[in-house]
Amino acid sequence: MIETIFLPGIKEIIESNSPGELMKIIEEGFVWYAQKKVKVPPVGHLGFKSPPGDVHIKYGYIEGDEYYVIKIASGFYENPTVGLPPGNGMMLLFSQKTGEVLSILLDEGYLTDIRTAIAGAVAAKYLAPSKVTCIGIVGTGVQARLQLKYLKMVTDCRNVVVWGRSQVKLERFIQDPDLRQFSITGTTEIDLVTSRCNLIVTTTASRKAILSADSILPGTHITAMGADAEGKQEIDAALVAKADIVVADSIEQCIDHGDIGYAVRANLIHPDRIVALGDVVQDQRLRRMNDRQISVADLTGVAIQDIQITKYVYLKYHGRK
Amino acid sequence: MIETIFLPGIKEIIESNSPGELMKIIEEGFVWYAQKKVKVPPVGHLGFKSPPGDVHIKYGYIEGDEYYVIKIASGFYENPTVGLPPGNGMMLLFSQKTGEVLSILLDEGYLTDIRTAIAGAVAAKYLAPSKVTCIGIVGTGVQARLQLKYLKMVTDCRNVVVWGRSQVKLERFIQDPDLRQFSITGTTEIDLVTSRCNLIVTTTASRKAILSADSILPGTHITAMGADAEGKQEIDAALVAKADIVVADSIEQCIDHGDIGYAVRANLIHPDRIVALGDVVQDQRLRRMNDRQISVADLTGVAIQDIQITKYVYLKYHGRK
Repeated sequence: MIETIFLPGIKEIIESNSPGELMKIIEEGFVWYAQKKVKVPPVGHLGFKSPPGDVHIKYGYIEGDEYYVIKIASGFYENPTVGLPPGNGMMLLFSQKTGEVLSILLDEGYLTDIRTAIAGAVAAKYLAPSKVTCIGIVGTGVQARLQLKYLKMVTDCRNVVVWGRSQVKLERFIQDPDLRQFSITGTTEIDLVTSRCNLIVTTTASRKAILSADSILPGTHITAMGADAEGKQEIDAALVAKADIVVADSIEQCIDHGDIGYAVRANLIHPDRIVALGDVVQDQRLRRMNDRQISVADLTGVAIQDIQITKYVYLKYHGRK
Repeated sequence: MIETIFLPGIKEIIESNSPGELMKIIEEGFVWYAQKKVKVPPVGHLGFKSPPGDVHIKYGYIEGDEYYVIKIASGFYENPTVGLPPGNGMMLLFSQKTGEVLSILLDEGYLTDIRTAIAGAVAAKYLAPSKVTCIGIVGTGVQARLQLKYLKMVTDCRNVVVWGRSQVKLERFIQDPDLRQFSITGTTEIDLVTSRCNLIVTTTASRKAILSADSILPGTHITAMGADAEGKQEIDAALVAKADIVVADSIEQCIDHGDIGYAVRANLIHPDRIVALGDVVQDQRLRRMNDRQISVADLTGVAIQDIQITKYVYLKYHGRK
């Protein structure tokens, strides 16, 4: 029998379970991905002009596993004018033994948001300095909030500076009840973030670097998760080059269309210097040596995250019935 | 609200409606495809070794239409050992305006079978000689039966010679109640097909040509629909070269992995001689001039067929409620 699980059911499963469990399976996924045990073919794409829209099909599987997963995600940017969110999506889980569909998760993009936020927490867990003095969040959207929410798992720091271009959105961010455990300062000046924070997460759709090399404090870790397509950029190529540790969720993807790509194409760093996040999870020698080093983690999103979170929801849903 | 339509519902819709309607929309689709109004990105693929399996993701849309379609089709060849059919699949229909999923058709591959059979009928409608004396069916599987069933729409001929390697399967084919309007002779000798029939449909998974150039009667039309992947072949390259008219459902695909490809790679025909099926539907000058010409139609299956049949089922289902 095919399970169709709708958004409210998925939210309940995610929110009633320990985020530690989710973090564990996403970490595990990154390790398998770095070990090349995960088959992830090139992303499928459909583009529309009127109204403008993009559809991405991400799919793959872990070798020898029970399942394969196909994710269909869309962005139709004018949807808000008809009262709909721009993003939508679903995850489909199939048997790797027979091809049968086992579950259709009509998550409307929610699981992508969650698995993206958790990847940020994984990066911070292994790369943040031992004492985080203040968390910097660049951007005020859904992902900015989720990144901060999931950082609670990996740091005790509750001081936050959030940067945005709009005072209204900054105010809404500060008032978000989900973030009430944090003491949050809003700013439109990026220097306030870089001068105070030693754990910074960038979550924008910017097409121009927001963080520059010279403004970053020694010992800072930066997770850049906004640049996920050609033309997007959040951090300076010089900042990537200056970093002591450069980490990518997928080395290939980050060179192709992440922030790291700008530094590689400008010959500011050699691709061999880039470390896979899954290797950082496994090997302590690839993490920071001291609290003066600067580290950068570039996250573009990998199908293994979708595979892992889809399996998680499916197995939990089964357990509950 | 999302409609999930299961196989029995889809079968009922298809079987209770005029096959002429289906034929019309598939023809229309081929015309749009030939006119380059259809966006069909490269097919996505996942391959499995143990047990062996293949998953294909076909997707696309007609420019300016309301919808886009994603088809997920699988073949797990050892499924019969656990009591399951090897093929499975689903069609997903989305809004081209918002990205919302409108319908999930859990058709288990049925719609692919139907749209494939209808493409064969379209080819015969425009390419068969004016008087079909005997229909030749090469192969005894599901598609062999469906091809014959849908040929009823385009020819009055009810004499059939069916070729297969297994007497048991030939007998089952002859006894099929769906085909009781035909007078069918079974044979394991391919020459009986070629010496009697002037409309031949090949439907096998052969990897070696079954029909050769010298055996074909003048005036014969051949639809070859079995070769849909690299390494498969049903008709001789010399037969393609000998044909007066060479038609492809997709010129690109047929050169890449259809029967026509063998003739092109051997420099026996120039790609410019290949005519798109959609152009044949539209332009009488591209069809046969007389009943001595030999014509070949190579069908590899195109996403536009999936788009059209998915829309058809969705709109019919809506009409019924």
